[in-house]
Amino acid sequence: MTRKLVAEGLGTLMLLATVVGSGIMAENLAAGNDALALLGNTLATGAILAVLITMLGPISGAHFNPAVTLAFLVRREIDARTAAAYVGVQVVGGLAGAALAHAMFDMDLLQVSTKTRTGMGQWLAEGVATFGLVATILATLKARPTAVAAMVGLYISAGYWFTASTSFANPAVTIARSFTDTFSGIAPADAPAFIGAQFVGALVATGLMAWLLRDRRSSGE
Amino acid sequence: MTRKLVAEGLGTLMLLATVVGSGIMAENLAAGNDALALLGNTLATGAILAVLITMLGPISGAHFNPAVTLAFLVRREIDARTAAAYVGVQVVGGLAGAALAHAMFDMDLLQVSTKTRTGMGQWLAEGVATFGLVATILATLKARPTAVAAMVGLYISAGYWFTASTSFANPAVTIARSFTDTFSGIAPADAPAFIGAQFVGALVATGLMAWLLRDRRSSGE
Amino acid sequence: MTRKLVAEGLGTLMLLATVVGSGIMAENLAAGNDALALLGNTLATGAILAVLITMLGPISGAHFNPAVTLAFLVRREIDARTAAAYVGVQVVGGLAGAALAHAMFDMDLLQVSTKTRTGMGQWLAEGVATFGLVATILATLKARPTAVAAMVGLYISAGYWFTASTSFANPAVTIARSFTDTFSGIAPADAPAFIGAQFVGALVATGLMAWLLRDRRSSGE
Amino acid sequence: MTRKLVAEGLGTLMLLATVVGSGIMAENLAAGNDALALLGNTLATGAILAVLITMLGPISGAHFNPAVTLAFLVRREIDARTAAAYVGVQVVGGLAGAALAHAMFDMDLLQVSTKTRTGMGQWLAEGVATFGLVATILATLKARPTAVAAMVGLYISAGYWFTASTSFANPAVTIARSFTDTFSGIAPADAPAFIGAQFVGALVATGLMAWLLRDRRSSGE
Repeated sequence: MTRKLVAEGLGTLMLLATVVGSGIMAENLAAGNDALALLGNTLATGAILAVLITMLGPISGAHFNPAVTLAFLVRREIDARTAAAYVGVQVVGGLAGAALAHAMFDMDLLQVSTKTRTGMGQWLAEGVATFGLVATILATLKARPTAVAAMVGLYISAGYWFTASTSFANPAVTIARSFTDTFSGIAPADAPAFIGAQFVGALVATGLMAWLLRDRRSSGE
Repeated sequence: MTRKLVAEGLGTLMLLATVVGSGIMAENLAAGNDALALLGNTLATGAILAVLITMLGPISGAHFNPAVTLAFLVRREIDARTAAAYVGVQVVGGLAGAALAHAMFDMDLLQVSTKTRTGMGQWLAEGVATFGLVATILATLKARPTAVAAMVGLYISAGYWFTASTSFANPAVTIARSFTDTFSGIAPADAPAFIGAQFVGALVATGLMAWLLRDRRSSGE
Repeated sequence: MTRKLVAEGLGTLMLLATVVGSGIMAENLAAGNDALALLGNTLATGAILAVLITMLGPISGAHFNPAVTLAFLVRREIDARTAAAYVGVQVVGGLAGAALAHAMFDMDLLQVSTKTRTGMGQWLAEGVATFGLVATILATLKARPTAVAAMVGLYISAGYWFTASTSFANPAVTIARSFTDTFSGIAPADAPAFIGAQFVGALVATGLMAWLLRDRRSSGE
Repeated sequence: MTRKLVAEGLGTLMLLATVVGSGIMAENLAAGNDALALLGNTLATGAILAVLITMLGPISGAHFNPAVTLAFLVRREIDARTAAAYVGVQVVGGLAGAALAHAMFDMDLLQVSTKTRTGMGQWLAEGVATFGLVATILATLKARPTAVAAMVGLYISAGYWFTASTSFANPAVTIARSFTDTFSGIAPADAPAFIGAQFVGALVATGLMAWLLRDRRSSGE
């Protein structure tokens, strides 16, 4: 159990160090062109997700995301107590990752974001983003389990561009990103609605996929 | 059968949400540089294709494309009634996906494109694009079935750049893109010629591949 | 045999349509920024190579390149007569691919490049590029044959950036690119030195790899 | 043994030719936009790492990096004498690779960098970068050995963006990059602190991973 929690914490830490750090680097270099900045941010995030899930998947399942942990809880593939511990280390790991990014770029470790991200479109986008992420994980776990790491990396790479909110799709990421006043930040006041939309998206995906992926023998087809 | 149709509809919906949504995002951020906008659009589209085909392939075959369904119909790998139902949900799913992208970006759900895409070069490009897509699918299904999802994602990523039309290569995508007045749109009046060229390309590929990939034992070699 | 030659011709045609076509698209869109143009050109070329080799490898070996065919001839894995036929269809397919790209972009089908690419650095670069390409193919065929397609795509993607000549690394590609007066062109007068350097690089790689990859049992180690 | 050393030397040579060469190309073309230059540099470096490790891994283990060799020495998977020889050829290969890049771009073969890269943030970044690299290698070797090449390529692609130092993460690379006065250079006076941080990061990763990845049977869980 200790190793599972260390894996979840370390993975979420590296994920946030990458999301926040690559956002800082990209904005520093992009000379005001946000498409270029988002390209750098996307490339780094998609790549590290594939790496971290491949590395740490056999240890903890590599959730790094309370919405994903919730989906597995609903499916009874993780017990409530373990799930709570997972969420705890994900949040702590995420915050540490943002602080690590700040330290590497010689910034204040503790920051509060001032970037407004709100409105119906953004909330819908977070619901869609997290629906798609959880659907990707559940369907790929059944279709081809060795491809989950690559598919999550590719899905989030797409999500950074096709959703209006750039696909946070992860409550631990959302909390951590509210503590960075850089490219990837979100004002703390805007975080709860994002997180609510993420859990809704995750639950809808869990329900739909339970039906779509159920075993043929029991479906009467 | 219901699940197959839901998979085709959901997949085409997510594909169009990505094509249209990433086009909007890319154009918003790219500050007028269309190469940069197309890079973002390409990355998102290629990535989501690999994800959706991996996820949903075991359920419906993951066509998401009437030209691909036509190829399998000609090969008698799908019956006419199922093929017709597939095409129906692909078109409906595609339209819903474009509307979902608009909703995420706080735009009018229903739009009509004003972007002209016409002329011999463009039609030839759509024929070539769809020829290549269907050839990729049929040849990879024989050579290495587990690689189809990745190959389609890579093929369309290339197609966005090497064909003059940016490779719509899909009648359901073409119809849906005629209902968005954004980066990825096509004026409705220009859609029928694109769709015609796509079906021609698909049929040529189906014929050529039937010969090129036929079993050696029956070829006399 | 006919199908092998069609596969080599079709593959080289699609490769050149992609190299030349994506160069035209990228230059049209990049508003004078050559790094952006090369990114689009790289992405399309790397992707299509992975696709074409995966698709057509089981039929013809997917050389699409006289320097690669030469390497297999030296290794006696192809006979001289077949090798000559391969080179013939590669050259013809390449020329047809460049013309197809021109047709898609509504340009004159027949063009002659005016882009100077010459000098010791460029020739060294072509030797290095082709050395690396042939070494990649031979070593990966031994280490993990199913990865050859991906490795060639990745190698050429790197080569477009790390070699001063942008890694033509292929005599058929060089000939075809001397018949396009667009982004990817090379003046015909500069082509022979490129081709010479490519064959030298291929032969050096064939020799070195024969030693480096030889079976351990016969090496006395 | 000779072949192992040739593989390590050749691989590190090709790696540095790519890192330095793609930096020169990218800076030449990017018209002063450093985000664009780093994108080209990243793409080439990530791609060639996946290729070189796939190709040469079965021969030498494909370290190309004294910090990686140190990790395997600590784990007693390589003996001290072989490790010393590996490090020697890595350094020589790296220097030759930088010189080869200069030759391809018609520059002076021998250069000394004047680019300052120093400070606590940078050193922390190198420690983090190398920690992550060694952790990626050790964990992936256990989780899915055939994925190591791809994971290293992806990890370094992410590292170029999320670490403030752009992830040298390799003492042989650091030495070689102090001998190029181009995009990827580092002033020789700044190299020792980078190398020190890299070895610290590698040792921390080796220790943590020994615990995190230890066999379950012996862990009492």
